[in-house]
Amino acid sequence: MTDTTAPPGTAGATVADVGEATLIARIRERVPPAPDWVVTGPGDDAAVVEPPRGALDVVTTDTLVEGLHFDSSFVAPNDLGHKALAVNLSDLAAMGAVPRLAVLSLVLPPALPAADVDALVEGLLALAGHTGTALVGGNITGSPGPLVIGVTAIGAVRRRRVLTRAGGRPGDELWVTGAVGAAAAGLGWLRQAASLGTPDDPELAACVARYRRPDPRVRVGMLLGRNRTACAGVDLSDGLADGVRQICSASGVGAVIDGDALPVPPGARRWFAGAGVDPVEAAVAGGDDYELLVAVPRAARRGFRAIRRLTHGVPMTRIGELTRAPELVLRTGGDDRPLPAAWAHFGTAP
Amino acid sequence: MTDTTAPPGTAGATVADVGEATLIARIRERVPPAPDWVVTGPGDDAAVVEPPRGALDVVTTDTLVEGLHFDSSFVAPNDLGHKALAVNLSDLAAMGAVPRLAVLSLVLPPALPAADVDALVEGLLALAGHTGTALVGGNITGSPGPLVIGVTAIGAVRRRRVLTRAGGRPGDELWVTGAVGAAAAGLGWLRQAASLGTPDDPELAACVARYRRPDPRVRVGMLLGRNRTACAGVDLSDGLADGVRQICSASGVGAVIDGDALPVPPGARRWFAGAGVDPVEAAVAGGDDYELLVAVPRAARRGFRAIRRLTHGVPMTRIGELTRAPELVLRTGGDDRPLPAAWAHFGTAP
Repeated sequence: MTDTTAPPGTAGATVADVGEATLIARIRERVPPAPDWVVTGPGDDAAVVEPPRGALDVVTTDTLVEGLHFDSSFVAPNDLGHKALAVNLSDLAAMGAVPRLAVLSLVLPPALPAADVDALVEGLLALAGHTGTALVGGNITGSPGPLVIGVTAIGAVRRRRVLTRAGGRPGDELWVTGAVGAAAAGLGWLRQAASLGTPDDPELAACVARYRRPDPRVRVGMLLGRNRTACAGVDLSDGLADGVRQICSASGVGAVIDGDALPVPPGARRWFAGAGVDPVEAAVAGGDDYELLVAVPRAARRGFRAIRRLTHGVPMTRIGELTRAPELVLRTGGDDRPLPAAWAHFGTAP
Repeated sequence: MTDTTAPPGTAGATVADVGEATLIARIRERVPPAPDWVVTGPGDDAAVVEPPRGALDVVTTDTLVEGLHFDSSFVAPNDLGHKALAVNLSDLAAMGAVPRLAVLSLVLPPALPAADVDALVEGLLALAGHTGTALVGGNITGSPGPLVIGVTAIGAVRRRRVLTRAGGRPGDELWVTGAVGAAAAGLGWLRQAASLGTPDDPELAACVARYRRPDPRVRVGMLLGRNRTACAGVDLSDGLADGVRQICSASGVGAVIDGDALPVPPGARRWFAGAGVDPVEAAVAGGDDYELLVAVPRAARRGFRAIRRLTHGVPMTRIGELTRAPELVLRTGGDDRPLPAAWAHFGTAP
């Protein structure tokens, strides 16, 4: 990670130089005043918060590991902080929940520049600010290995509005937010470039940005939780193929995905084609998009259209439907083939 | 932990052999049926739970890192799972909260035996069962470095019963649960022995057990949250000296600790003496006891005695008092000296 401008007296200081207590104090200085419902914020044995009124607590946890989920040679600390929270907010959105709070666990190599920790926390807090998420606590510890960033996020959803993976039925339409394959294409470029820079092609640059700073569909999730037209949802952390599989497995159905309808952005299509990969297959298998995939009963189509008008520019695309037949099918140009397998976690390269 | 590679399904299979999906399925099989208030348990994008009635949510997160918080050569996977939850339940107890639920984040080296993951999860679930903590979710990922176990635990406490670190006043008595220094002595023996065995001396063996499987003071925490006689509390994750410092710093007071009154168990005293270390200094500085330190106003003494009768055999010892003078003093045999410094996190040895 780059050694950005450090506060006076700490230029070039590492995590080990600065120490745990100082790092924690520096994070606390950056945390904005807590909302009223935070009774005890950072700095005690635990945080104490008022539960949401008339709603349920929604809890998710996700961890980013250096060398597996990110490579510091091409993802800057600020982006990492953003991403560590974003992946959790994406899970909340997929449940129809509104984010409320988060706790942060940092496992820090001693040689990491302390300024990187500052930048990481700033990236996280900026997204927290935009989404109304209060950072209420966390813990910091050393690492004899990679940098590990764990976030647990808690949101709220009304009881009858919970959007599980299990509510899909044959005949439901499958809709996806935003674009698929962008992050995979962006990651492809980054692996080749191994740089903190950005490609000249603005459409490919958008894909790179999508990989580095996923935009969790917080507003769409909130609308889904209010409107109750979708009956199942999942976030595309591990790609579209995985998301389809998750909904189908939990709902006991199959699916046909219309490969020709997939919102694969032009920059990603060009990148995949240039790499000699089928753009549709690559977009379906690629992870890190953090879009939402939802199942919508045909009868709820009209109500769902209301959500599409309120998403503030987030496109929503119909990409297929759930089927009684248990197969997962990818259909392109009238040709059917099995949906490709999903992205796997137990590699060692990011 | 042993590095054995074998085909999936066999006794020696590694995490990489078995894969993420199977590991998750195996964990889910072990999780007992969830209580009624868990609306959506493991297996969706996030867990959904009813908040506690008439109480606040208490949230804490803590992470154990291999090579820093534990050494697999002398802590077995089952103990590790127990400990990963215990350290979080200890934080909840220090707030006067009752545990309700937890989420688990596992960062697993590919060569780790899958049986170790099973044992780890069993250790965690056994403690969860004893303490009424529902495991509602989590995530598993690979690790290019050490094993990392993150737990976020959520409990409940009534608004007027929250036990922060900041409520201490000059004149308050300081009380500690259980014993101090036991875990530090146990760790001392383990570092020397570097074995999964146990010392012959049963009193030293008790110290080793204390290090490997800390007993979070869940019941005492619950009683403190009900009874309201203590006005400040902290858990001794980083040792007594650190706990005293935390309460004093948050409450704006000093303290005198009576070194002669400290409940240092005989096995620990002998170990420290044999290692040529002052037993009191070692017990005060040593971490990992996970006892509770609470401040009790003199006027609340009688009410506090009621707690001491209900702790089911957990001893409670008066070890000093808070002072107007800001110094932190350790008094032994009428001799005063500054309280030793606490244990630091940024080493690389456990």
